[in-house]
Amino acid sequence: MTAFDAIGLDADDTLWENETFFRVTEAEFCALLADHGDPEAIAGRLYDTESANLARYGYGIKGFMLSMVQTAIELTDGRIEGRQIARILDLGAEMLAHPVTLLPGGEAALDALAGRRLILITKGDLIDQERKVAASGLAERFAGVEILADKTPEAYARVLDAHGIAAERFMMVGNSMRSDVIPVLELGGTGVFIPHALTWNHEHAEAPDHPRLHQLSDMAALPDLVARLEAAG
Amino acid sequence: MTAFDAIGLDADDTLWENETFFRVTEAEFCALLADHGDPEAIAGRLYDTESANLARYGYGIKGFMLSMVQTAIELTDGRIEGRQIARILDLGAEMLAHPVTLLPGGEAALDALAGRRLILITKGDLIDQERKVAASGLAERFAGVEILADKTPEAYARVLDAHGIAAERFMMVGNSMRSDVIPVLELGGTGVFIPHALTWNHEHAEAPDHPRLHQLSDMAALPDLVARLEAAG
Repeated sequence: MTAFDAIGLDADDTLWENETFFRVTEAEFCALLADHGDPEAIAGRLYDTESANLARYGYGIKGFMLSMVQTAIELTDGRIEGRQIARILDLGAEMLAHPVTLLPGGEAALDALAGRRLILITKGDLIDQERKVAASGLAERFAGVEILADKTPEAYARVLDAHGIAAERFMMVGNSMRSDVIPVLELGGTGVFIPHALTWNHEHAEAPDHPRLHQLSDMAALPDLVARLEAAG
Repeated sequence: MTAFDAIGLDADDTLWENETFFRVTEAEFCALLADHGDPEAIAGRLYDTESANLARYGYGIKGFMLSMVQTAIELTDGRIEGRQIARILDLGAEMLAHPVTLLPGGEAALDALAGRRLILITKGDLIDQERKVAASGLAERFAGVEILADKTPEAYARVLDAHGIAAERFMMVGNSMRSDVIPVLELGGTGVFIPHALTWNHEHAEAPDHPRLHQLSDMAALPDLVARLEAAG
């Protein structure tokens, strides 16, 4: 019989809004540079810069800010003005202070799963993720909070090892096929994909045809899925 | 009898060089802005900006880069040129790629302490600290690597709790009185202060008069201190 010793939950765009703040900032960034290209072209350049910088900066708002500054310099051939760069820093400061907006159904699902070993597993800037966990009011629901540099199979394996959890008895839930689902399936665990309307291009990956991959429309359906999988054995 | 179940080791400027890279970059930053003030004044402004931004950005090179950009804009009343901002981003990129230079005596001390439960405890950018741990070649020596947003008593308490270690049987070793020693003394642990010639002003704190505070000149003396404290009971 299948039984889950622990359930891992992604945070950004699984428990609370995140990508929407990046999109708002991206739109303001494009408006700031409107003399230098149309919004799609500028957003494309920004994405390319972010992708190229990922190995150096990792995930998170500070790296996004640095990539915006770099893109602005490159797009203007260095003619960007200091006050415009200052505006980019202000946009980043607003992101770093944004309120935490829980997604519908998440808290009720955590209530229904209370008593189980729940682990919050996220990636990005350490200080920003810790701020959001605290502001969410959800910290007490979790047996552990793991903030990773990247969500690779190796990183998940380290988390499972630290908590003494067998991958076969672990379920990971999140909105990123690439970061939340596929690495856990690779380790032998169960992956639950809950797509969000807004998901960063980088996080997209083709859904594998896999017997331990499940898809839900929102967090509210999670407790039933867990019960169903355990009953089906 | 005193016995240590685990020994925590700071990394930056305890096991390997770190502050020296910040100082080199700071000097280049001051040279870049030489028309706008003497080096001490510019470095002072940068320090003030960094300190004001700590709550927002946390520790690490990305926050330092953003603080350099902000300081450059403010010091020039927004007249800084794009190519100079680009130079600041390049300085940051060099820092993020700097080689890991082990401090003398560290590796031999870890050899002498092999078999003990050693935990690397550091703070800063997740991805940068992970890079340095990997590049140091020392990762295998540690039962755990903990990268914290800040080294507060609460953060140390979470680490000890996660590893099942009693504070009274924990020793922390590092070059920062403020971050490595005082919080651990507060929890009831033992603190070993190994000052480094270069230490960021922010990390300075007055040494408390405390029976569980010990000072060494370098890591080479650590194994003897551990043996002596355990023998003395």
